[in-house]
Amino acid sequence: MELVNLYKDIDNFVDKEIELNGWIRNHRKQKEFGFIDFSDGTSFKHIQVVYDNKINDFDEIATLHNGSSIHVKGILIKSEGNKQDYEMKANFIKLLGDCPEDYPLQPKKHSREFLREIAYLRPRTNLFQAVFRIRSVAAHAIHTYFQDRDYVYLHAPLITASDCEGAGEMFQVTTLDIDNLKGKPDYKEDFFGKKTTLTVSGQLQGEIFAMAFNKIYTFGPTFRAENSNTKTHASEFWMIEPEIAFCDLDNLMEIEEDMLKYVVKYVLDKAKDEIEFLDKFVEVGLKEKLEILVDSNFTKIKFDEAINLLIDSNEKFEYTPIHGEDIAKEHEKWLTNHFNGPVFLTDWPKEIKAFYMKQNDDSKTVRAVDLLVPGAGELMGGSQREEDYDKLITRMDELNMDSKDMEWYLNLRKYGGCIHSGFGMGFERLLIYLTGVENIRDVIPFPRTPKTCEF
Amino acid sequence: MELVNLYKDIDNFVDKEIELNGWIRNHRKQKEFGFIDFSDGTSFKHIQVVYDNKINDFDEIATLHNGSSIHVKGILIKSEGNKQDYEMKANFIKLLGDCPEDYPLQPKKHSREFLREIAYLRPRTNLFQAVFRIRSVAAHAIHTYFQDRDYVYLHAPLITASDCEGAGEMFQVTTLDIDNLKGKPDYKEDFFGKKTTLTVSGQLQGEIFAMAFNKIYTFGPTFRAENSNTKTHASEFWMIEPEIAFCDLDNLMEIEEDMLKYVVKYVLDKAKDEIEFLDKFVEVGLKEKLEILVDSNFTKIKFDEAINLLIDSNEKFEYTPIHGEDIAKEHEKWLTNHFNGPVFLTDWPKEIKAFYMKQNDDSKTVRAVDLLVPGAGELMGGSQREEDYDKLITRMDELNMDSKDMEWYLNLRKYGGCIHSGFGMGFERLLIYLTGVENIRDVIPFPRTPKTCEF
Repeated sequence: MELVNLYKDIDNFVDKEIELNGWIRNHRKQKEFGFIDFSDGTSFKHIQVVYDNKINDFDEIATLHNGSSIHVKGILIKSEGNKQDYEMKANFIKLLGDCPEDYPLQPKKHSREFLREIAYLRPRTNLFQAVFRIRSVAAHAIHTYFQDRDYVYLHAPLITASDCEGAGEMFQVTTLDIDNLKGKPDYKEDFFGKKTTLTVSGQLQGEIFAMAFNKIYTFGPTFRAENSNTKTHASEFWMIEPEIAFCDLDNLMEIEEDMLKYVVKYVLDKAKDEIEFLDKFVEVGLKEKLEILVDSNFTKIKFDEAINLLIDSNEKFEYTPIHGEDIAKEHEKWLTNHFNGPVFLTDWPKEIKAFYMKQNDDSKTVRAVDLLVPGAGELMGGSQREEDYDKLITRMDELNMDSKDMEWYLNLRKYGGCIHSGFGMGFERLLIYLTGVENIRDVIPFPRTPKTCEF
Repeated sequence: MELVNLYKDIDNFVDKEIELNGWIRNHRKQKEFGFIDFSDGTSFKHIQVVYDNKINDFDEIATLHNGSSIHVKGILIKSEGNKQDYEMKANFIKLLGDCPEDYPLQPKKHSREFLREIAYLRPRTNLFQAVFRIRSVAAHAIHTYFQDRDYVYLHAPLITASDCEGAGEMFQVTTLDIDNLKGKPDYKEDFFGKKTTLTVSGQLQGEIFAMAFNKIYTFGPTFRAENSNTKTHASEFWMIEPEIAFCDLDNLMEIEEDMLKYVVKYVLDKAKDEIEFLDKFVEVGLKEKLEILVDSNFTKIKFDEAINLLIDSNEKFEYTPIHGEDIAKEHEKWLTNHFNGPVFLTDWPKEIKAFYMKQNDDSKTVRAVDLLVPGAGELMGGSQREEDYDKLITRMDELNMDSKDMEWYLNLRKYGGCIHSGFGMGFERLLIYLTGVENIRDVIPFPRTPKTCEF
């Protein structure tokens, strides 16, 4: 059976024989006894397997290495020790797959840097068992939230021929034989007959689908070829981008708040052991932080008013807050501290936001919103979209954008357009918040960053 | 409110006032009445909105174009006509977004080829409302199946530095300025410091995770740069690749069968209207085909025995079935006909299967399995994996594979390896089966195929 099922109904198995397949995480031997810290990977919880010298092949079993896979048969008993409530008294242990003594994962603390180098083994450690199971649970929370509310899940395309958003540097995708290029590449000969790149966002396709299905979301990989080696940047990451028709900015903020609370609550419910572990060893106070979020009131404040608050605060910031300019992480932090909870920052200067955002009547700001969360900074970015064809094309002209490439996007405004809004959430940013793990390289199974593309 | 919620509890709303936002799919006007075929995209079901000349702005409303977005207020009534059970008697209609008369989507039958050209509008048609909502529902069915059974969802990396499986031609990913290359490209200068491509499979990373979490699945995009323009090939498509530790080929087949039946049943339950529509207009008998699958027995037969059956059948095949060689679509069809249901074809000649598959003692065959389904052909391909380090490396040597690049993969056999198995299912292949739509371009929102990369 599996440990996850054993623990769902463990009292029912006491004094009964059970059989398990899994791995030796640690093995302590005494003269007449042995203790195996046993995990089968289906549950964050391990179980202690005890055997004594009455077992067949005691001497051989006593030599089993850490990391080996074994088959165990025995009786589940209520433990008398205080370290664990249950243990297994083995009457049969069989080696399935050996593991040499120089196994890189030893039962001791390894640095995260070292574990990144052996990313193919780190999922076996407690830390990464917790992180990657939470990644899985959180992904399902997101799907379940939207599907239960009748959103349509859109797989936006990954390979694209247009850099619509200009959101960053892009990877080129090609089948041209660039090792043997003679002169300039002829893109007519390339696979798609033109120059193509990896997408930076599925939003524009999301708008297409929102104009047909009303409420949609994407959840897929996006790419940035930014050459920055920071704790929060990866070249390949997953994004969630909901888009909703007949939805203004106020409705959008309600959805963002409702979704975030749902996902956090779902993870608290479904990954209890993992959260407890991270709370203890990674971010002290993590669990309380998440519980507080679920019950908190989200503040709404306009960008301009926030700048006033920052200026009036007399706080010594490294960067002086200035009207019309972007804010820094320290400002985000001050604001969430000041309001003691998450803050929706709305109505941003149009110059620092994307072309497709709904222009306010002041002709200076747009109906954009960033959600700032204590301990995470900006977690979501969204906006009402400009649904006015003329205003949109004027803005694109101002920004010297080629509207011909974007005719289909503009036409969404011409063919039964309507007020609509959407937001984007970087999945890894959410995971950093949910796990307390600080480096994006530690919430992605096999991270891709400048000069790193292993496994 | 939303149509989806209205229809969940429609009898409760009879004779009550409701408000809707959505689109005019068709508009018939008479002298004193108007009839709007109204859809808000949240439900496959539309509703008929009726208004008469007592409504404010009757003359203006009567001019509203197909495709326009409107806000409607009115009373829900039980309809006396026999075409629909309910309709809405409008007392207020407001135009939100106009749509010109030359709107490409007219209320008539458009060819699928034409609709592909306007892929940004086709989700508004009944056919694609059905197909893409089923795509969304089926995706969630797959997630729910695995999550309910404690599988961990793995996001396998998309950009990769190794062509492990050799499953096909690959797209190169680069940030080198190939428009201005001087001589050979220097991959040390490329973004990742080496040559990188888009993945063709997440299986090998799936094995890493199975050795840590026991039961895992991937569900993400994969890529093939094959220059083939067929109804079943796309350059970018989504794959599901479960991988399970302590699982042999027989267990694997049980999982495949159980999962497929679950997903089909889920779609039959949750997309009733869509399936009814497709059954009527796309594939007559679709619904029955799916219902039969859910209740059918899956046959298991060895490849060699299947070849014998094919040879003994005296059927005039275009390609003669030969021991040790691959079979053709006509053979697959004959087999599912013969067994009157899905067929697991096991123990394939090793020469035509991948290097990582578990070698049988006959040294000729491997523990591979293809699932053949009536009306779909091969729907899943899987195998038990070779867990023996020496056998695996010998096989790689035979195939002139560079085992140095794959050290981590080989090490999975050294560090507590165990019997394990997995399979892959192309999501679009499933969708073609579920919808009866024949061309893969019509089950992908924005398909990428040779020379085509639009939207």
